[in-house]
Amino acid sequence: MNAVTLPTPPAAPTAPSSPDDQTREELLTSLRACFAGRIIDRSTELEPFLQDYRKRWHGTTLALVQPEQTVEVAAIVKWCVANRVAVFTQGGNTGLVGGSVPDEGGRSIILSLARMQRILSVDADNNTLTAEGGAILQHVQQAAARADRLFPLSLGAEGSCTLGGNLATNAGGIQVLRYGNARDLCLGLEVVTSDGEIWDGLRGLRKDNTGYDLKHLFIGSEGSLGIITAATVKLYPQPAAQMTAWAGVPDVPSAVRLLSLAQKQLSASLTAFELISAEAVDLVLHHMPQARNPLSEPCAYYVLLESSDAEGEAHAVSAFEALMSDAFEAELVTDAAIASSLAQSKAFWHIRHYLPEAQAFDGENVKHDISLPISGIAAFIEAGREAVHKVLPNARIFVFGHLGDGNLHYNVSAPEGASEAEYRAMRGNEKAISSAIYDVVAQAGGSISAEHGVGQLRVHSIARYKSAQEMNMMRQIKRVFDPDNLFNPGRVVTPEA
Amino acid sequence: MNAVTLPTPPAAPTAPSSPDDQTREELLTSLRACFAGRIIDRSTELEPFLQDYRKRWHGTTLALVQPEQTVEVAAIVKWCVANRVAVFTQGGNTGLVGGSVPDEGGRSIILSLARMQRILSVDADNNTLTAEGGAILQHVQQAAARADRLFPLSLGAEGSCTLGGNLATNAGGIQVLRYGNARDLCLGLEVVTSDGEIWDGLRGLRKDNTGYDLKHLFIGSEGSLGIITAATVKLYPQPAAQMTAWAGVPDVPSAVRLLSLAQKQLSASLTAFELISAEAVDLVLHHMPQARNPLSEPCAYYVLLESSDAEGEAHAVSAFEALMSDAFEAELVTDAAIASSLAQSKAFWHIRHYLPEAQAFDGENVKHDISLPISGIAAFIEAGREAVHKVLPNARIFVFGHLGDGNLHYNVSAPEGASEAEYRAMRGNEKAISSAIYDVVAQAGGSISAEHGVGQLRVHSIARYKSAQEMNMMRQIKRVFDPDNLFNPGRVVTPEA
Repeated sequence: MNAVTLPTPPAAPTAPSSPDDQTREELLTSLRACFAGRIIDRSTELEPFLQDYRKRWHGTTLALVQPEQTVEVAAIVKWCVANRVAVFTQGGNTGLVGGSVPDEGGRSIILSLARMQRILSVDADNNTLTAEGGAILQHVQQAAARADRLFPLSLGAEGSCTLGGNLATNAGGIQVLRYGNARDLCLGLEVVTSDGEIWDGLRGLRKDNTGYDLKHLFIGSEGSLGIITAATVKLYPQPAAQMTAWAGVPDVPSAVRLLSLAQKQLSASLTAFELISAEAVDLVLHHMPQARNPLSEPCAYYVLLESSDAEGEAHAVSAFEALMSDAFEAELVTDAAIASSLAQSKAFWHIRHYLPEAQAFDGENVKHDISLPISGIAAFIEAGREAVHKVLPNARIFVFGHLGDGNLHYNVSAPEGASEAEYRAMRGNEKAISSAIYDVVAQAGGSISAEHGVGQLRVHSIARYKSAQEMNMMRQIKRVFDPDNLFNPGRVVTPEA
Repeated sequence: MNAVTLPTPPAAPTAPSSPDDQTREELLTSLRACFAGRIIDRSTELEPFLQDYRKRWHGTTLALVQPEQTVEVAAIVKWCVANRVAVFTQGGNTGLVGGSVPDEGGRSIILSLARMQRILSVDADNNTLTAEGGAILQHVQQAAARADRLFPLSLGAEGSCTLGGNLATNAGGIQVLRYGNARDLCLGLEVVTSDGEIWDGLRGLRKDNTGYDLKHLFIGSEGSLGIITAATVKLYPQPAAQMTAWAGVPDVPSAVRLLSLAQKQLSASLTAFELISAEAVDLVLHHMPQARNPLSEPCAYYVLLESSDAEGEAHAVSAFEALMSDAFEAELVTDAAIASSLAQSKAFWHIRHYLPEAQAFDGENVKHDISLPISGIAAFIEAGREAVHKVLPNARIFVFGHLGDGNLHYNVSAPEGASEAEYRAMRGNEKAISSAIYDVVAQAGGSISAEHGVGQLRVHSIARYKSAQEMNMMRQIKRVFDPDNLFNPGRVVTPEA
C-alpha cells in the first residue's frame, strides 16, 4: 500500500457490508473502539500467546483481549458473534494438546483471563472457595491454606495454570486417587455462553437435584461450549502430616495387588500411588547425577506412595510400616523405604517429577497419556510393547504414571544410542506408533487421553475410537451451545463429521 | 361393542393412517405383536405401577413393557417413536416426586427394568462393578461385599430401588459426606437414546478426557433424556469397623463448628453427620415408647455421627473419644455417647430413621428437601421459621437432615393438638408454606430439591427459581436429546417455556 494519502471520495450509500466481508483492519478498529484498554495487538507482545510453551503449535489472531470482569467477557462474546470472529480462550496457556493456541485463520481473538484472577470468597464453614476463572492455581491453594483448608488440585504447572483452565480441561494431577479430578472438586460455575449471556451457576452446594447438571457439560469441554469466568470449588481439612514411601516390586501384577492392600489399610489417606519402571528410574539416575535409587537392590518396577494423615506423622509412619510389613509377607514388595524427612520425601518425588526432563535429555520420544482399567494394566503393558515393536523394533518404552488412577504415561523412544537414521524412522512412524498403542488401549477398554484432553492434537483420534452415536451426541451439543462454531473451533469436536 | 362377529369386508386400499390417529386398541395390538411375552396390560396387574408408593400421583397407560435386554429396550423406544407413544421408565418406583408415574394421557407405556437386574461383572482390582439398570441396590451392595468391596450408596429404599433409578435421580442417602452422591459413584453408562440407539459408555476409568462428559448429562435427568440400561460404578475397600456417636449441642452454630472439627480430626473416616432438633427427637420418643434419648439431659439439637475406620474398632473409638473431648473443651457439645455395641449404634440410627414415621403418626405435614451452604444453615433455620409463621402462625417445624451435606428436611406441621380447622388451614396453605420456605432458600443460595429430584412435583417450582438462561439451556438439551418429547414428558423440564 502506498504511504501517500489520497483524498477520499465521499462514500456512496451502500448496504451495510456483511460481517464476513469486514477486513482485518476494520475488525481491529472496531475491537479497539469497543474494548479500549483491554487489547494487545502488537505482534511482538502477541507472540507468547500464539504458541504453546512446548512450541508445538502456532496460530495467528486479530488481537488478544483481556477483560477485567465477567460483563466484559459477555460483551466481547457478543461482539464476536456480531462479527463472526472466533474466540480462543486462554488461561495459563500451559496445555499439552494445543487447545488454547489460536488457529491459522487469523479471524479470531484470544480471550485471556489474565486480569480476572481474584479470589472472590472463602467460606471455611462450607468448605468452599469462589474465584475468577483466571485465578492462578497456586493462589487458590494459598487462599485455602490461609483459611486452614486444603484445595487439593496440584500439578506441575500450578504456578501458572488457572482455575478456569483446570476446569475447562478437567485437570488431573498428583492427588486424584484421594480427591478426584478437577471436575470432582467443582460445585458451581459462572459461564459466558455463546449468546453472550452470563449463566450464574456459582452454587456452593453438595446436593442439588433440580435438573440437568450443566456444570459437568462445561467442565472438560475445553472452552468449546462456553467460557468459565468463575467457579466455586470444594475445600478439605488440611492433613496433619504427609508421608512418602518408595517400594520395589517384582512386576506389575504385584504393584496392582499392593495398590489394593494400600487402599484397604490406608483408605482415603492414600493420596498417591505412582508406578515407575526400572528403565525410567535408570534414565533419571543417568541424567541427574545427584539422584540415587532409594533402594539398594534394583527392581523391575518401583512404586511411590504418598499418604495424607489426619492424626500426625507418627500415625502416618506406623501405617506405612504396617503396610510394608504385610506387603513383604505377601511377597508383593522386595524392598521399601519410608521417607524419614521432608528432604527425603522430596528426593523420592524428584525422581518421579524429573522423568519428563530426563526423557528430553535422552532424545525425542512419542508421548502417550492413556488410562486403563487397573486390572488390565499388566496385560496392556506387554501387549502395547508388542504392538510398538511391530512398528519400530528395538524401540524403548518408558512406563510410568498414576497407577492408582489407571493412568499411564507410556512413552516410546528410539533404541539406546540410536543413529540419526533410527531417529528419522521414529519420527516418520510417530502416528503409526501412537495408533498401534491406541488400538490396544481401545481393545482393553481404555482412554487415549486420560488427563491432557483433546485440543487440536487428538480431535481426529477421538473420532476414530468413539462410536458414531457418541460423536453424534457430542456434535449435537456443540451445535446447540455454539451454533456459530466460534468457541475454540476445531478443538475437541467439529460440528460436522 | 357387539360380541357378534360380522364378516369383515375386504379392506379398501387406504393411505396408512397417521400414528396419532391410531386407537388405543390398535396400539395395544401392535405392542402385543411386537413384544410378545413382555407385556402387562391387565388393569389389576397394572395398578401398582400406575401410582407411587405414597399414592400421591396416579396415571394411566397402554401397557407395562418389561424387556429382558438392552436391544429390546432399544426396539421398544423405536416402536414408541414410530407410534408417538410416550415412555415412562420405572425402576423400583420408590421416588418421592412422581417422576416414574405415567401421566393421565394414556398414550404412553411404562418401561420397567424389572427383568434387567443382572450383575454383569465385578472387577475387584479395578474397584468397579457393572450391572444392569434394573439391579436392586441391595443386590449391588451384596455383590460388592462378596468381592470384599463396598458399594457405599445406601438409602431407605435400598431393598427395592434400582441402580438405574438411583443414577437417573442422582440418589443421595446416608454416606454422601464421604462417598458423594450416586453421580460421584458412577464411571460409565449404557443408555438407550431417543432414536432407539444404544450408547455404550460402560467405561471403568477414573480418568478420561476425550470430550464432553455425556454420562453426567444422563445422570440426574430422571429418564427425560435417555434410559439407563446398565452402569459401571466405583467400589471401595470395606471398612474394618463402623462406629456411631450421639452428641448434644447447644445450638446450630455449635453443630456446624463440630462438623468442621470432626472433618479435621476424622477426615474421610467421617461418613455421616446428621442434625436432629430436640422437637424431632421428642416426637420419636413420644411415638416409639421403646426408644430413649441416648443422653440424660435434653439439648436443643442432637448430632448423630458415623465413622468408617480402616484400622478397626479400637482406633475408631479412640478417634471419637478424642473428638468429643476436644469438642467439650471448645464448648461445642454438652454431652455425648459413643455406641458400645452394634445394638446401641442401631438404636441411635433408629431415632433418625424413625422420624418420617413419627411425623406420619403425628399428623399431616408439608415436607421439604432443601440444601444450603453449611455456613448459612443456622441463619436459614431462623429465617425459614419466621417466613412459615407469617403464613401459618404456631406451625411446628421439624428440622433434621444431613448437615454434613448441607441437606435439611425442613418439615412443617400444624400446631400441637391442632383442630380440624387448623389442619384445613395448613392443607389450604401448603403451596404458600413451601413458597415461603423456597424464597428464603433461594435467597440463601440453596436448592429447593437436594436429593429427591424434580419429577412432577417441582417442575414448575424449579422454573421459578432458576434463571431464564439456565431453563433455556435445559430446554435446548431436552429438545436435542428427546426431540419428540416422549421420554418422561412433563417431568424435570418441558421443552417449551
